[in-house]
Amino acid sequence: MSEPRQNPIERITDAVCDVLAEQGVTALSMRNVAARADATIGLITHHFPNRAAMVKAAVRASWLRDQAVVVWPETADRAAVLRAVKVFLPLDAARRRQLSVWIGYWALTQHDAGLHEIHDEVYAALRGHHLRWIRTLGFPPEEAERLADRLCVSLDGLLLYALLYPAHWTPERQLEAARGMIDDVFARAPRPGPGG
Amino acid sequence: MSEPRQNPIERITDAVCDVLAEQGVTALSMRNVAARADATIGLITHHFPNRAAMVKAAVRASWLRDQAVVVWPETADRAAVLRAVKVFLPLDAARRRQLSVWIGYWALTQHDAGLHEIHDEVYAALRGHHLRWIRTLGFPPEEAERLADRLCVSLDGLLLYALLYPAHWTPERQLEAARGMIDDVFARAPRPGPGG
Repeated sequence: MSEPRQNPIERITDAVCDVLAEQGVTALSMRNVAARADATIGLITHHFPNRAAMVKAAVRASWLRDQAVVVWPETADRAAVLRAVKVFLPLDAARRRQLSVWIGYWALTQHDAGLHEIHDEVYAALRGHHLRWIRTLGFPPEEAERLADRLCVSLDGLLLYALLYPAHWTPERQLEAARGMIDDVFARAPRPGPGG
Repeated sequence: MSEPRQNPIERITDAVCDVLAEQGVTALSMRNVAARADATIGLITHHFPNRAAMVKAAVRASWLRDQAVVVWPETADRAAVLRAVKVFLPLDAARRRQLSVWIGYWALTQHDAGLHEIHDEVYAALRGHHLRWIRTLGFPPEEAERLADRLCVSLDGLLLYALLYPAHWTPERQLEAARGMIDDVFARAPRPGPGG
């Protein structure tokens, strides 16, 4: 066996994502994560007081990795908005895998109040990014917030459907729907954006 | 203890929903379901060969209960469409509970191909119901299908967000968003519907 090069926290959070993506939420035991991380249960509990803390760290790490590669537009630029949204769409196996982690996490949050922190953080961030470009289209503030909310909801619905119905929701259809959801915001705009 | 009056299959499928809603997907063991149903594991395995079969029966029963109370419009009638959609929104504790079962189920389907059957069935039904009223608005067939798909996606995104972010997604806001999603279809219509 080659010596693990990652730091132990990364090894554990990666293992949580691996277990969630490959075996599913019901397989997410300390024992399975330890085996996958090539770690002892003692090492895990040294870093994470409980399963919720471990899952939170794993999902946050996945979110931060996505955030590091996405470039959110500061102005209303259709193509740039779609490029940012594409990062989250399950267009290939790697992104399907990432999203599969999130579906497991959504289910877990239902019975663990502490886990909510992460998706609250994610929603605030996504909503903020969309609000920024939507505001430049000249909407009244309340309408801009409503549209940002609606866009977040519809795009996450799309992620969910793309994962649940892969035969129907091909990458082409996902992109067409995402583009349509973004275009709907532009279509309502009091003044057209640079890409409009 | 009063004698259970339900038939054993109903008792078991109700217990699956109870465990999913109250304890979450990770608690969904045969043992927990048996305890909740006041049944033996032997009785469960007599009716269901495996956990997937048991979960499928439970989710299908929940879907059939919803289907029994929802009236889908045959024509484009905004108010009637919103009434049908309302049945699925988590506007109160009972409906939040039902939806919580579905989130657990979505997570389970990720690693159990057999489970897909149910949500394929649900999607086909919902999409068909929406297609029916959307078609009466005079869209070309492909556009009607695209809009029905989009509406299903956005509405399920709304269900998910309403469950994940209950503080923000109050019943009023859920209804406003659902109404907005339905109105968007009417706004694109070649000819206005009776409610348009």
